[in-house]
Amino acid sequence: MNADCPLCNGDGGAVLWRDDQLRIVAPGETNHPGMLRVIWNRHVREMTDLDAADRAACLHAVFSCERVLRDVLQPDKINVASLGNVVPHLHWHVVPRYRDDPHFPDPIWGPRRRDTVRGVPADFAVRVSERLRVLS
Amino acid sequence: MNADCPLCNGDGGAVLWRDDQLRIVAPGETNHPGMLRVIWNRHVREMTDLDAADRAACLHAVFSCERVLRDVLQPDKINVASLGNVVPHLHWHVVPRYRDDPHFPDPIWGPRRRDTVRGVPADFAVRVSERLRVLS
Repeated sequence: MNADCPLCNGDGGAVLWRDDQLRIVAPGETNHPGMLRVIWNRHVREMTDLDAADRAACLHAVFSCERVLRDVLQPDKINVASLGNVVPHLHWHVVPRYRDDPHFPDPIWGPRRRDTVRGVPADFAVRVSERLRVLS
Repeated sequence: MNADCPLCNGDGGAVLWRDDQLRIVAPGETNHPGMLRVIWNRHVREMTDLDAADRAACLHAVFSCERVLRDVLQPDKINVASLGNVVPHLHWHVVPRYRDDPHFPDPIWGPRRRDTVRGVPADFAVRVSERLRVLS
């Protein structure tokens, strides 16, 4: 627990899955509304600060998100990243990408190229939660 | 094998480790010379296109790179990402980040903020290769 850390002090989005180790949230990112984040509950900096079992649990969650996003949204590509330069509390971005999304083919942190934002289905959160439960 | 794919037609950098499944290369990226890439040998698009054993092998390589870069370079942060929007052949970027590097705290694909480039030790490639062999 780090008093100054936003991911110690809040969920970081709408929680679609949670257990003792981690949570999966939909942050509702404006340009990429289908983005999910996997956030390790404990304030840990790097993946190699986790032991092998915890790292495997974290990665199982990350690739469950990838699987679910591919099934639910059929994106053109998936982007997966753990950066944490601004908030050094272990979290992963799992981002469905479309050829006409605001940044494609750049990373989502690159320059904005266009205004097309692909929405998610109205039942997105429910479907993702259900599929994550099956994969857990 | 995809005739148009640069990662099917070349190594993608100086090879520091190679086996039947993957290779680890130092691409010699100008702004981030300590960056490593893990490149799956077969032309596969997404991590979830690999079976569980192959995915585990790929991730073992990725986090071996993270471990080795932390040991050899003591960066302020590690960034790990699999994007592939431009080259959809599975590859991971493992990037040592420094508070004074050209893009910090943005992702390395963000705007360039400054000119400071931290070089790597002269024996970087040798030390990384040796450490990767131990971790394999």
